[in-house]
Amino acid sequence: MIPWALEVEYDGTGFMGWQRQKHGLAVQQVMEEAGAKLCGGSIPAAVASGRTDAGVHALGQIVQMDLPDFSPHRLREALNYHMKPHPVVVLRAAPAPAGWSARFSATWRSYRYIISNRPAFPALELNRVWHVRQPLDEAAMHRAAQQLLGHHDFSSFRASACQAKSPLRTLDELSVTREGEHLIIHAKARSFLHHQVRNMVGSLKMVGEGVWPESRVAEVLAAQNRAVAGPTAPAGGLYFVSVGYEVPLFETYKAGEQK
Amino acid sequence: MIPWALEVEYDGTGFMGWQRQKHGLAVQQVMEEAGAKLCGGSIPAAVASGRTDAGVHALGQIVQMDLPDFSPHRLREALNYHMKPHPVVVLRAAPAPAGWSARFSATWRSYRYIISNRPAFPALELNRVWHVRQPLDEAAMHRAAQQLLGHHDFSSFRASACQAKSPLRTLDELSVTREGEHLIIHAKARSFLHHQVRNMVGSLKMVGEGVWPESRVAEVLAAQNRAVAGPTAPAGGLYFVSVGYEVPLFETYKAGEQK
Repeated sequence: MIPWALEVEYDGTGFMGWQRQKHGLAVQQVMEEAGAKLCGGSIPAAVASGRTDAGVHALGQIVQMDLPDFSPHRLREALNYHMKPHPVVVLRAAPAPAGWSARFSATWRSYRYIISNRPAFPALELNRVWHVRQPLDEAAMHRAAQQLLGHHDFSSFRASACQAKSPLRTLDELSVTREGEHLIIHAKARSFLHHQVRNMVGSLKMVGEGVWPESRVAEVLAAQNRAVAGPTAPAGGLYFVSVGYEVPLFETYKAGEQK
Repeated sequence: MIPWALEVEYDGTGFMGWQRQKHGLAVQQVMEEAGAKLCGGSIPAAVASGRTDAGVHALGQIVQMDLPDFSPHRLREALNYHMKPHPVVVLRAAPAPAGWSARFSATWRSYRYIISNRPAFPALELNRVWHVRQPLDEAAMHRAAQQLLGHHDFSSFRASACQAKSPLRTLDELSVTREGEHLIIHAKARSFLHHQVRNMVGSLKMVGEGVWPESRVAEVLAAQNRAVAGPTAPAGGLYFVSVGYEVPLFETYKAGEQK
């Protein structure tokens, strides 16, 4: 058994989120059970770079697991075989660097949030986007988003269940762009509070609808009070995109060899 | 009651296709039942520009139905309300031009086929793409596709159940492009035979894998024999994109008013 770093994609719709729960299936459980089948016995708990909530998707979640000393190709194929038919797949695998932690070594995490902004319900995007019927002003939303950049107390955008010791976070990027009927919100920070991205999106939507002036977002931030912020955007529109580490994880392999 | 033209989007996954069937739900039935609720009684059969198969999606199917003389906005909203929770939505609605037929007035139809070309199963695209693990040569596929353009007997790419009187069709466009891990196949013709797009894609995939030389596609076409062509590509990767008519249908409305 050696420690592995795994790049993982999943459809969060049917899961209770990343972390094991008493009631309902979690992505962690799917991965650990596949790993146990590989080893013919139980394995230590899998650790993820970010604990996504129920319904939140991942395009590049990074997971740390102790698994057999296979080739990266064989390890990926074997895990994917045992995770079927759950919508969880390993995209790339590599032996973890010494002393590396999927969670604590991360220097940044990035998320994408997708809003479908059109009158009709998006028939092909159920649980993949937040459907907002009213036309949104993406330029106003983007300007308002810039008020949140930097080192702040994000209590106004923090879930009451958040277990972080401090509400202080440094938000590095928060952009809003339109691609046709879709609004794409990109967020990047070393780490986020529980529900922080979804709560920031919910407030930006208030600006986009014209219900709030752009300046309101800075006031909400300054209030350090969750009650004054906008609604929590639905989980299905959120994608955990990627994680940065100082040590490269998969780059020792030729481009295209694994992907 | 007046004749309407409707632009319709649907997720074909759970349906028997467009056309009503004895066993299982069809998109036509969902739309006719919503129309009947609107009218408080039965309505004439809905006619589609193209009868999509089970599992095939539509982004811009055009449907002709007799419905009440509402405003286009109100008609769309009422139909969409009554079609819930089925993944079928009207994007735009307009009174149909005199003498217009959704099916017989069409001058071209276009389809998109999406292949996910990567080792790992696409967890977020179940029933949305054809997953092909082997790396495909999209340039070779595109060149081979050009052999099919023009007026030909397409018997080699025709389903045995096809009800068309003639196997002759004129293929105007068939292109293959790569967007990252996705191969996008675009097809355009006045009309297509049953399974024609999926059968052409199945043969192009043989070229992309290197199993067939590019020249084989012209030989398959010339053979006029379904048995020599490649497999039928799965339904879930196919999208009915749009339909052309000589008379504009929705352009009398201001841009953005309906969409």
